[in-house]
Amino acid sequence: MNHVQPDEIELDATPFDKLREECGVMAVYGHPEAARMTYWGLYSLQHRGQESGGIATSNGEDIIDVKGMGLVSEIFTDDVLQKLPGQMAIGHTRYSTTGDSALLNAQPIRVESTKGLIAIAHNGNLVNLGTAKERLERDGAVFQTTSDTEIIVQLIAHSAETTLVDCIADSLSQVDGAFSIVMMTRNRIFAARDPRGFRPLCMGRIPGVDGKPDTFVFASETCALDLLHAKYERDVQPGELVMVSEDGVTSRYFNTTTKQASCIFEHVYFARPDSKVFGRWVQKSREEMGRQLARESAVEADLVVPVPDSGVTAAIGYSAESGIPFNFGLIRNHYVGRTFIEPTQRVRDFGVRMKLNPSRALLEGKRIILIDDSIIRGTTSRKIVRMCRAAGAKEVHMRISCPPTISPCFYGVDTPSTKELIAANNTIEEIRQFIEADSLAYLSLGGVLKACGAYEPHGNSFCTACYTGNYPTQWVDVDEILPAVAVKV
Amino acid sequence: MNHVQPDEIELDATPFDKLREECGVMAVYGHPEAARMTYWGLYSLQHRGQESGGIATSNGEDIIDVKGMGLVSEIFTDDVLQKLPGQMAIGHTRYSTTGDSALLNAQPIRVESTKGLIAIAHNGNLVNLGTAKERLERDGAVFQTTSDTEIIVQLIAHSAETTLVDCIADSLSQVDGAFSIVMMTRNRIFAARDPRGFRPLCMGRIPGVDGKPDTFVFASETCALDLLHAKYERDVQPGELVMVSEDGVTSRYFNTTTKQASCIFEHVYFARPDSKVFGRWVQKSREEMGRQLARESAVEADLVVPVPDSGVTAAIGYSAESGIPFNFGLIRNHYVGRTFIEPTQRVRDFGVRMKLNPSRALLEGKRIILIDDSIIRGTTSRKIVRMCRAAGAKEVHMRISCPPTISPCFYGVDTPSTKELIAANNTIEEIRQFIEADSLAYLSLGGVLKACGAYEPHGNSFCTACYTGNYPTQWVDVDEILPAVAVKV
Amino acid sequence: MNHVQPDEIELDATPFDKLREECGVMAVYGHPEAARMTYWGLYSLQHRGQESGGIATSNGEDIIDVKGMGLVSEIFTDDVLQKLPGQMAIGHTRYSTTGDSALLNAQPIRVESTKGLIAIAHNGNLVNLGTAKERLERDGAVFQTTSDTEIIVQLIAHSAETTLVDCIADSLSQVDGAFSIVMMTRNRIFAARDPRGFRPLCMGRIPGVDGKPDTFVFASETCALDLLHAKYERDVQPGELVMVSEDGVTSRYFNTTTKQASCIFEHVYFARPDSKVFGRWVQKSREEMGRQLARESAVEADLVVPVPDSGVTAAIGYSAESGIPFNFGLIRNHYVGRTFIEPTQRVRDFGVRMKLNPSRALLEGKRIILIDDSIIRGTTSRKIVRMCRAAGAKEVHMRISCPPTISPCFYGVDTPSTKELIAANNTIEEIRQFIEADSLAYLSLGGVLKACGAYEPHGNSFCTACYTGNYPTQWVDVDEILPAVAVKV
Amino acid sequence: MNHVQPDEIELDATPFDKLREECGVMAVYGHPEAARMTYWGLYSLQHRGQESGGIATSNGEDIIDVKGMGLVSEIFTDDVLQKLPGQMAIGHTRYSTTGDSALLNAQPIRVESTKGLIAIAHNGNLVNLGTAKERLERDGAVFQTTSDTEIIVQLIAHSAETTLVDCIADSLSQVDGAFSIVMMTRNRIFAARDPRGFRPLCMGRIPGVDGKPDTFVFASETCALDLLHAKYERDVQPGELVMVSEDGVTSRYFNTTTKQASCIFEHVYFARPDSKVFGRWVQKSREEMGRQLARESAVEADLVVPVPDSGVTAAIGYSAESGIPFNFGLIRNHYVGRTFIEPTQRVRDFGVRMKLNPSRALLEGKRIILIDDSIIRGTTSRKIVRMCRAAGAKEVHMRISCPPTISPCFYGVDTPSTKELIAANNTIEEIRQFIEADSLAYLSLGGVLKACGAYEPHGNSFCTACYTGNYPTQWVDVDEILPAVAVKV
Repeated sequence: MNHVQPDEIELDATPFDKLREECGVMAVYGHPEAARMTYWGLYSLQHRGQESGGIATSNGEDIIDVKGMGLVSEIFTDDVLQKLPGQMAIGHTRYSTTGDSALLNAQPIRVESTKGLIAIAHNGNLVNLGTAKERLERDGAVFQTTSDTEIIVQLIAHSAETTLVDCIADSLSQVDGAFSIVMMTRNRIFAARDPRGFRPLCMGRIPGVDGKPDTFVFASETCALDLLHAKYERDVQPGELVMVSEDGVTSRYFNTTTKQASCIFEHVYFARPDSKVFGRWVQKSREEMGRQLARESAVEADLVVPVPDSGVTAAIGYSAESGIPFNFGLIRNHYVGRTFIEPTQRVRDFGVRMKLNPSRALLEGKRIILIDDSIIRGTTSRKIVRMCRAAGAKEVHMRISCPPTISPCFYGVDTPSTKELIAANNTIEEIRQFIEADSLAYLSLGGVLKACGAYEPHGNSFCTACYTGNYPTQWVDVDEILPAVAVKV
Repeated sequence: MNHVQPDEIELDATPFDKLREECGVMAVYGHPEAARMTYWGLYSLQHRGQESGGIATSNGEDIIDVKGMGLVSEIFTDDVLQKLPGQMAIGHTRYSTTGDSALLNAQPIRVESTKGLIAIAHNGNLVNLGTAKERLERDGAVFQTTSDTEIIVQLIAHSAETTLVDCIADSLSQVDGAFSIVMMTRNRIFAARDPRGFRPLCMGRIPGVDGKPDTFVFASETCALDLLHAKYERDVQPGELVMVSEDGVTSRYFNTTTKQASCIFEHVYFARPDSKVFGRWVQKSREEMGRQLARESAVEADLVVPVPDSGVTAAIGYSAESGIPFNFGLIRNHYVGRTFIEPTQRVRDFGVRMKLNPSRALLEGKRIILIDDSIIRGTTSRKIVRMCRAAGAKEVHMRISCPPTISPCFYGVDTPSTKELIAANNTIEEIRQFIEADSLAYLSLGGVLKACGAYEPHGNSFCTACYTGNYPTQWVDVDEILPAVAVKV
Repeated sequence: MNHVQPDEIELDATPFDKLREECGVMAVYGHPEAARMTYWGLYSLQHRGQESGGIATSNGEDIIDVKGMGLVSEIFTDDVLQKLPGQMAIGHTRYSTTGDSALLNAQPIRVESTKGLIAIAHNGNLVNLGTAKERLERDGAVFQTTSDTEIIVQLIAHSAETTLVDCIADSLSQVDGAFSIVMMTRNRIFAARDPRGFRPLCMGRIPGVDGKPDTFVFASETCALDLLHAKYERDVQPGELVMVSEDGVTSRYFNTTTKQASCIFEHVYFARPDSKVFGRWVQKSREEMGRQLARESAVEADLVVPVPDSGVTAAIGYSAESGIPFNFGLIRNHYVGRTFIEPTQRVRDFGVRMKLNPSRALLEGKRIILIDDSIIRGTTSRKIVRMCRAAGAKEVHMRISCPPTISPCFYGVDTPSTKELIAANNTIEEIRQFIEADSLAYLSLGGVLKACGAYEPHGNSFCTACYTGNYPTQWVDVDEILPAVAVKV
Repeated sequence: MNHVQPDEIELDATPFDKLREECGVMAVYGHPEAARMTYWGLYSLQHRGQESGGIATSNGEDIIDVKGMGLVSEIFTDDVLQKLPGQMAIGHTRYSTTGDSALLNAQPIRVESTKGLIAIAHNGNLVNLGTAKERLERDGAVFQTTSDTEIIVQLIAHSAETTLVDCIADSLSQVDGAFSIVMMTRNRIFAARDPRGFRPLCMGRIPGVDGKPDTFVFASETCALDLLHAKYERDVQPGELVMVSEDGVTSRYFNTTTKQASCIFEHVYFARPDSKVFGRWVQKSREEMGRQLARESAVEADLVVPVPDSGVTAAIGYSAESGIPFNFGLIRNHYVGRTFIEPTQRVRDFGVRMKLNPSRALLEGKRIILIDDSIIRGTTSRKIVRMCRAAGAKEVHMRISCPPTISPCFYGVDTPSTKELIAANNTIEEIRQFIEADSLAYLSLGGVLKACGAYEPHGNSFCTACYTGNYPTQWVDVDEILPAVAVKV
């Protein structure tokens, strides 16, 4: 087994060492302020991607779009929204590839083809693109972005089907991987999820007032519906293509045979705790993870301390189950912006200290249980353990609310490559030594599945590839994936 | 008694209805990267003021300063810091008056007079300026800003004393009100607090390495020392003037007769929970406020829910004392920027919903206890109560971790005028009706003082004017203060 | 004949009422600082388009591009140029369509297809796109921009030819209209002009030093070669496709049967006077226009006054030929930016006065001859005539250095529609009355052709459609072109 | 005599090597859109300073000011102007000291003192400040800027006179040097010029419509009056203090004994050609300089070529007097912004080539006379001469429309120090060799004075210190002025 070399890792470590989701999507049908509604929805989905955003609207004749780098609130002003007229809109927010072409890859993408004007926004990542792309290029396709989303619209344009909805279904049945997408033509909205339902996508409704028709809303998470006072109706189902038009809502399935494999990490970390994801409250899952962790890995201690904010709900659950008091022994600096000036000489634990400060009032002389949602490279965890000890903690026990992360994700999460994942290369005892904790325990795979309701009647089936290496799509051959590809796919 | 008219208030209410501190100050003596250290210190004091910031350094010959609007991380880049050489620096961060001249009022102020070059940064507000300003103007003084800080440097320039330290002491003994100040000349740093010690100011030390002399740091709160790995030494005392120079640290008192009256609201709300303020851990005071509140105002319920983030620590205390479970029934949107686009038509509870979303998973069917640190106008509290009920809460009991706020502050807190303070014009029962809670209770004055350690041996004496109307400075005559002045002073 | 209604026109008139060229292009092959060379070249072509710009470079493996809104000097900083490595580059500067999608339409366009990576930059406008676009869309083409340039790359991608150069020639032979284009693959540069040679494109060479190979440069005008110390070699010929690769420069013709029709307005107004365009010095043409105008339309006067800067060279010619003194009776304000605040109430001649001020010292009591290059709507000319009279001019005679502009351009110039062109709807006497001049004369068609050397041996053949309505491309049916299309095509 | 070392100079030379004026001032009394009028006035005075600008208005109760870095059109938007209410305004535009404190030194300065609120804007430089500043500091004055203008307001504040107008006159009589100032109190405007009248300041009037009172305007140059449709009334006289109030215009003199010494370089270069300065048309002076130069220094040649734009009017005069044709053999690039990227390796004549391109069409085979207004360091002139030769000029004769510049200015012009002035250290023949011209001649002192009307009845008396070293103020002792001071004063 390869030993992680602490100092090498230190240089690689990003300041806060969290996995990053790549996107959030929104769609609104039938509202006089569709752009504004979409803007607010994206606002509440901002945690799913902070680097670029965009909104496209249709006024029935043309599709207009505005995209930019930065937070939704930075891109869209009142003036900008007024340039986006129409009763239909789709939107996108993205954690994205860097570089000067980032804006070209921002979404929604708006294209014109023999199938008419289409705008599309996509959360997830397609896999096994090679064959499809080659075939399309042989047919003369011209790719202008480096985004895999372009494949979907090229397939629609090249589809031999006769109606647009058939072309879309045809296109979606040809691609593999993760996609929760919203699309818009001049007068229709489409929403679809890949057959495994990797990423969430829900549908809500705002009742029309004064006899006006209802407004339909699609969003990555229900927290966006809440902000818009929209009522959650149901999830778009895996393999389902929903269409909203003048004639109302219709649905069809382009794939009914593939088994569900929803991303369990949405419940562990990504989604907002107040969202219902895959039909289940995230906060409930997380509290239950904490409780289960307390059952599986009890330890005598004085205080349960969450690593903010990712460990908070599980820590509350751990405290409630164990009876050990909960408190914020690590205080977050809320004004940390996207950039700060680093020291010219190396200062110990600097990046983490800018974001977290241990509270000596609480930690001094205490045996503490630190709760976090995952350990990626281990360097941040080590800094936090050290900080707690420096602030007087007598014992530091680390508890993680999911199993060890051993495999990269190819379905829309920006994971480091296998060689950077500490748990892919070390035993739990080695990790414990590396992070310098007095004890370390992870939640079992069964435990996290149970906490997420997988064993309940009608419970979800989950993708747990990051914990098991079992990838639900057929062709992902991890051994053969080059590191560079692994990051990008 | 005047009844608050709900709709009128609604229009006045700022989105989040919190009182705002006006400043944080920093000083560093004897460090080759003084500007950078000051930058980081201000970073951790950012909660004390987000509208402008500045740093001045001395290279022994000249004092250079850079000031700007916005967050510290927005104003200072690596390039900018490199224009600030020297081993001494002072810094300031400000919540400030609006308007285009705001930058002119940013601090530190740098002036030249017969006493040489001086830069000054000030947290607090002076009162009773009339006489001093008139006398100075009669002597030919020219005022270029609308900041009361200018008075202090004019008094220094006009002082008849012969040494600079005597001039400063002379100046400080002539002004009344709240001031925690740091000053810098070409080769010295001064730090002083007003005789009542309204605002905090602490002193820390970073041991020199390799035989180099120690670095001295002054900061509004100890969290700034933590970030710099500086050891807390002591507070600058009320009425004390500390000087750091080549010859080390010296101290003198310019006033020893006035009684301490430190701002209790620093412990209730302003200061970061991980800071030690007036020699006492803030987090300890806040948890104790919650425990005391549980003792004074118990109620049968299923869940203790903090209003994030101001009510969190008190809620943990309330839960611990009462045994009622604690959880985050209100989820904060962390990506709310300083601006967002409001609806064109009035949407119910919009401003608050952008920032907080109730978690139906937790609230549905529950009797909840909402914990907050204060109620200013009442409109935000009402929105939160309504949101909780809309998310399914069966009963909503509001508990406030301090007494009713009935009087404006003249010592550095931006309070609305008396007629806008709901508790100044309504009984507690009227407030309860207005915010639509099932019950409402405030912490007693004795309770908050006890929680802050006022009755312990060597405990602090506090200013509680906002709860009692008893102003520690002699001449503040609240009845005669015009509303406009009340806001501004 | 429709009379122009002064007040209606006034509202439409842009402040300075000049026709606008749409683009300048650059390419550099074989220089270690290719991006930087392209940047400077675009700098000197900035008069051809000020609204967006872009540079793409190839490092042999990938093509990287940066595009932005604004002037070249605003888009490209040293940092940005350093992100553009490689020995080959193409660039583009554009006067462009407005709107938020303008950046998406900025060039160079970079695409990937079965033909590999290609970047393209285009000066001119294609016409008769309908059939080609329809056919491409039937074949599955997906259009992502509203730019006609995309057609060319789609045609290349769909071409059945086997080599890239054949595919490009095939593509270019299928489109009609104006195009001076530069293209780049990973290791080659292509440059081509449409068969009529509407827009200029020249080729230069910088001799290699120390035995290194020569650098090849392509640019819209020779002024870009001058700045780079490149020697002008020759024009890319109408219908020619030039390729530069490791093997040197090769040339082929994709069309040799169509007659040349180069844009005469390049000589009248667009090109910089120090450029050689279509093999002839622009400054020479313009001075000759002024001389010819003096011969054709002499008038007794005291002073020849140019409308700056468009009328300057012709005015010098007019003065030299007529013997009447030349001077700047209208002074230009050089600090007029792209925006200025207009009066809330209508102030007489405001927009023009911000840019030009009459010099009373010169005009008072004088009979003056005003020289300009064209009259589009007439409103600006009227304002200038009035200003001169208000400054004391006794007589104002207007002389225009080309024939009346009666038809819109479809080949890359942003002309107003026919109904806005004053000369399309009024006699010369009516125009004279409208602009309130004492006399008005235009240069004859024969005169402008003679001044541009059309009658000399090997002289150019020119497109004079804007003066005659005779469009050189077959299918432009002006009567059937809708106004909206007319502006855009 | 010290020889200039070409290579050393090259490194120091600013790209375009022109002297820079330091300021333009404006004031408007009695107009409902006073801020807007001032904005436009500053717009037309932008050539007098491009680095910062500001406007202050009075609404009768308060004085509001907005200042910023950059061009007037960049600082002031419609929104900003709407924050500047009132019927009175003063404004300032500045070429200024660099550095981060530049904004603090921007004007107008707004101060409060026992004399009330005052805003002031100043064109010129005070000299011999030492005594006054020392005395003020002894009296307790606190200086917040590094601008000499602050002295004037401190003197007003400390004046023992009883009325404000007496205090101002008292203050102005105590300072020496160059000042054309405008001042504003809550309800009055003051305008004054130093007793020698170094800098211009004129007064105009806009007749009131519909029985409303007239508007009064003060401006550095008459071109600002033209833009506002204000009628030029007269200059503010040297030593005069004009006051405009409800009671109309009153005037008094604070000094009548000092001899006029107006800056001749305003006529040679600074002022706009369409302005009347010191009561005389600038364009007339400049054309006459060119004519006189032709008389004094005739040479056989084919073409008179101006160095744009500074040499244009003199070149027209030279051509008219000599009969040698005039044309633009050097073409200016109008899109040169304030920054452009320089080559990494030194490219010959790069900076100048970015701004000027020689027109080979005109220069090839010609003997040319280059006309410019001055030679400062000589490096730019040499580059231009070389460029002309490279473009084919057979002979290059340089003619300068003023005498050699041998001494720095202390009255508001940013001159290099004596050691950098080529004419201070070299004979004319040495300069000719350095700039590589075939011949070189300067206009004589008598010639420039004659061209500016000094010998006409009631002609102005001029300061010619930059050509003679005779400084009109008593105490300027050039030999004793340290280089650093020389640049700054």
